[in-house]
Amino acid sequence: MPLIQYLSRILFDFGAVAGLAGEIDRLGMTRPLLATDEGVAEAGILQRVLDAVRPHDPVVYDGTTENPTEQSLLDCMELWRGRGCDGVIALGGGSPIDLAKAVALLASHGGELADYNVKTAGMEAIGPVAPQIAIPTAAGTGAEVGRACVMTLLDGRKSAAVSLNMVADAVICDPELTLSLPPRLTAATGIDALSHGVETYCSTWVNPPAAAIARDAAARAARWLPVAVAEGQNREARWEMMMAALMGGMCLQKSLGAAHAMANPLGELHLHHGTLIGILLPHVLWFNEAHAGEAIAELGEAMGAGKVPLGDFVSNLVARIGLPDRLGSLGVKGDQLPEIAARAAEDHLSASNPRPASAEDYLGLLKRAL
Amino acid sequence: MPLIQYLSRILFDFGAVAGLAGEIDRLGMTRPLLATDEGVAEAGILQRVLDAVRPHDPVVYDGTTENPTEQSLLDCMELWRGRGCDGVIALGGGSPIDLAKAVALLASHGGELADYNVKTAGMEAIGPVAPQIAIPTAAGTGAEVGRACVMTLLDGRKSAAVSLNMVADAVICDPELTLSLPPRLTAATGIDALSHGVETYCSTWVNPPAAAIARDAAARAARWLPVAVAEGQNREARWEMMMAALMGGMCLQKSLGAAHAMANPLGELHLHHGTLIGILLPHVLWFNEAHAGEAIAELGEAMGAGKVPLGDFVSNLVARIGLPDRLGSLGVKGDQLPEIAARAAEDHLSASNPRPASAEDYLGLLKRAL
Repeated sequence: MPLIQYLSRILFDFGAVAGLAGEIDRLGMTRPLLATDEGVAEAGILQRVLDAVRPHDPVVYDGTTENPTEQSLLDCMELWRGRGCDGVIALGGGSPIDLAKAVALLASHGGELADYNVKTAGMEAIGPVAPQIAIPTAAGTGAEVGRACVMTLLDGRKSAAVSLNMVADAVICDPELTLSLPPRLTAATGIDALSHGVETYCSTWVNPPAAAIARDAAARAARWLPVAVAEGQNREARWEMMMAALMGGMCLQKSLGAAHAMANPLGELHLHHGTLIGILLPHVLWFNEAHAGEAIAELGEAMGAGKVPLGDFVSNLVARIGLPDRLGSLGVKGDQLPEIAARAAEDHLSASNPRPASAEDYLGLLKRAL
Repeated sequence: MPLIQYLSRILFDFGAVAGLAGEIDRLGMTRPLLATDEGVAEAGILQRVLDAVRPHDPVVYDGTTENPTEQSLLDCMELWRGRGCDGVIALGGGSPIDLAKAVALLASHGGELADYNVKTAGMEAIGPVAPQIAIPTAAGTGAEVGRACVMTLLDGRKSAAVSLNMVADAVICDPELTLSLPPRLTAATGIDALSHGVETYCSTWVNPPAAAIARDAAARAARWLPVAVAEGQNREARWEMMMAALMGGMCLQKSLGAAHAMANPLGELHLHHGTLIGILLPHVLWFNEAHAGEAIAELGEAMGAGKVPLGDFVSNLVARIGLPDRLGSLGVKGDQLPEIAARAAEDHLSASNPRPASAEDYLGLLKRAL
């Protein structure tokens, strides 16, 4: 079983869930809480994991919403206390993974989630947290190796807690769990993985190991995402896409750029993150080209773009995997754009975009993408 | 200041030693022990670091030998106890870095080094150790991000202790410290960094993030090592070589291959590790070519070998940087080779070489390299 261990310990291969029981034991969990969502349960993935983990018998919470909420967290904490849990397993996409981090945090530190908002409390407020295991069921966000959890508080505000202490103690990446993911979701999550490689590679932050991982993630996703979308049962494509997503998550410490700076405020309109990224990324590449020519040329070579400009190449890829190319098709209206543009310019991810971008620049990008 | 953080926290740039005092404070050290060697002290590097770290006033041990010994460890432990130390700083190459790990281990766990031999005690015997900071003064081994310490016991045997808990809590990579490294040592350490990229990339272990880092390390070293050797004051070349060495250390978790399997037993003849690697690596590449054709071709492209076979390219590079190409020139005799070959075949690094290699194969390689 390939074991990858930088900050995270990652078991990665077909059948990796067979290693879950061993990780539970290694971390000293006797009564884990498993956080997942209804989609994962309905797809039969939850049952497969519960079968694999015997004789352990996790307490299951399957109410995670697409953008995780403090209400889910409170429900989980009630289960945690009522059932005597001592560790948490996330099974799903970014939402259960974020929720599990919040559970591990409150179970060990007490208080409320807002107490740990990185903007007010900083990262130092968070010490070692309760043990956690992350099991992604899609190949996209790379949240399984993340250090942050973003949740919607009861009053509607968003709150982010960030700490290296919240990195999952073990990650189990089993491409088997993604074989049944439908084409549309494969495309919309996979383009996010590709974008992590592309945007971190172009970001202004200096981090050559992350850049090396980023370029490889982008190349891997460019090659295998169309295959995984067209042939969901193609095991090699699923393995490669799960690896691209993992590597895309590992390189996020090099920061991102303008596409994510716009996707953040747009996401609050309850639009799917990856779908937004697929629409925005080509426009950002065209915008950045004159300011990150060398990085974009290197990416183009690694991704097999040939003589096609990278923005065109990604735009073609987005079309080929069946994703929309217009914000308007998601219901975004022109009069919403100025506020989105203003917030994108203020987003911390905008600062590492290779071409400085003002609110006016973002408005131009958003109008072209509308 | 670029901050790189996978398993290690790395401050990397010209002037990074200015961050040492902050790391000492962050780790709660009040009286650090600084382990280094006479060469580092004579080159004025020790004084530069002591100046940078004020008002901290580390207790200095400068008696580290080229292959660190248990006697050095006992001397350090006496200083540790006598002077009330509470953390350790390694300043130098692989030897002080290994020594510091052993100090951190015994200071926190007690007992003797042999108690923690990975072959008898395993990795589980080692819990969290005393705080450590590693500051490399050459661009080569990548030991600054390592998890092992290898030392010669009082009775002459070697003992290796290995644990993720022994990874340094902070690494400070300041290329400024390498500007005065003479050409021969620049070459002999730098070729080790290059070899880490090459051998890990070709190894049979599956670890794509490590492979991505490895390829980049090999490419970086191929481009910049000849420059750093020819122009020691070239700051860009020194930065790039220190980065290549760091990345070479990060990818070691993908294991190595036949060149290191032979360099290990040859090293016990007190021959310089990097010099050995420079002699052995071309022979290993010629030997592996038919079994790792794709990986070697990808490396060749990344390293700028053009149409030249990679073994020839590395052999030419070794000559160009002034390193010897014959084991005989180091005093190795033909009648020593059978035992070296037998031990290379038993070395754990041989198992991940892309072409299985028997003692007979190693004997052939060693004879060609003699």
